[in-house]
Amino acid sequence: MIRQGVRNENVCIALLHSHVYDRKGRVSVTSIANMDIHDIARCARTYGVGRFYIVTPIEEQRILAGKILRHWQSGYGSVHNPSRKEAFSLVDLKGDLGEVVEDMVLRFGKEPRIVVTGARMAGKTFPAASLREKILAGSDPFLLLFGTGWGLAEEVVERAHYLLEPIRGTGEYNHLPVRAAVAILLDRLWGR
Amino acid sequence: MIRQGVRNENVCIALLHSHVYDRKGRVSVTSIANMDIHDIARCARTYGVGRFYIVTPIEEQRILAGKILRHWQSGYGSVHNPSRKEAFSLVDLKGDLGEVVEDMVLRFGKEPRIVVTGARMAGKTFPAASLREKILAGSDPFLLLFGTGWGLAEEVVERAHYLLEPIRGTGEYNHLPVRAAVAILLDRLWGR
Repeated sequence: MIRQGVRNENVCIALLHSHVYDRKGRVSVTSIANMDIHDIARCARTYGVGRFYIVTPIEEQRILAGKILRHWQSGYGSVHNPSRKEAFSLVDLKGDLGEVVEDMVLRFGKEPRIVVTGARMAGKTFPAASLREKILAGSDPFLLLFGTGWGLAEEVVERAHYLLEPIRGTGEYNHLPVRAAVAILLDRLWGR
Repeated sequence: MIRQGVRNENVCIALLHSHVYDRKGRVSVTSIANMDIHDIARCARTYGVGRFYIVTPIEEQRILAGKILRHWQSGYGSVHNPSRKEAFSLVDLKGDLGEVVEDMVLRFGKEPRIVVTGARMAGKTFPAASLREKILAGSDPFLLLFGTGWGLAEEVVERAHYLLEPIRGTGEYNHLPVRAAVAILLDRLWGR
């Protein structure tokens, strides 16, 4: 059931732990959550995403997360659970969004088109199906940005080329975990 | 953006911690993972699901999980984070699938139609869109069963009335977290 013609290698995900809001709407920095690494890596691998960047300006957090990554990439975890190794092979740590863009330029030869999505998006947004068409239409790399905490700060949203429509359920409740939002967006892009 | 006419109150989710496979294909019992409670409760609330049952035969696990539930349902967590309280109001603990069915009979006046989904499904399966039609068409309650570990054991799959097609990405890798599988299935059912 491999679908030919689906080009996702040039689509990457970044999960931001700074430039995000806290519960009171203040721009803040969050801690890396171990479950985010696992869940988003597994979803990224399932849907053929090129790279999953975990972004935090806090060096100690990158050091700690680096140990976790190595456990699954090349340590005991990689032997114990080969499918987890496969997922973690996509994961990389960066200090800020600029470093992510630099890495993508090295990999793909040009700057990515930045896509943001979030429960709080206002203004003109478009559906996942349109993004899929844009990805298929050209040779541009794409970077899907997700925020931890209470979502991406305005300063990051302003850097985006595309605003995706927020994921809504059946009512007004919009407190999906970021892990679920990533899974749902990837499925809306490529999941059938 | 409330969608009228969507009837999900009669659809419930159960997450099984027994009658599931371990990595070696043996039927086994798993531990409750705190993140499963949070993520699935939030997704259930987002998509208007009636009830989320956490099922384990181990009493000590139910006692521990019960403390976590009360923290968010009525303890400090419910004040600190009202949206989490709203999600946790859907969560209930049961000892086995029979207790879940009993509770649904009390709530809905008849036994639920049981739906299973999983990466390993074989045989005749049907897509989420067909399930949505079946839910809308009648007055039956539905129970969506999910397995922890390496998925639902055959003995549970045999009790199901409907097999949903497995969630596939773009290739052969099929190791989604159960949290992601729930999010994706709910979105496929009601998410647009």
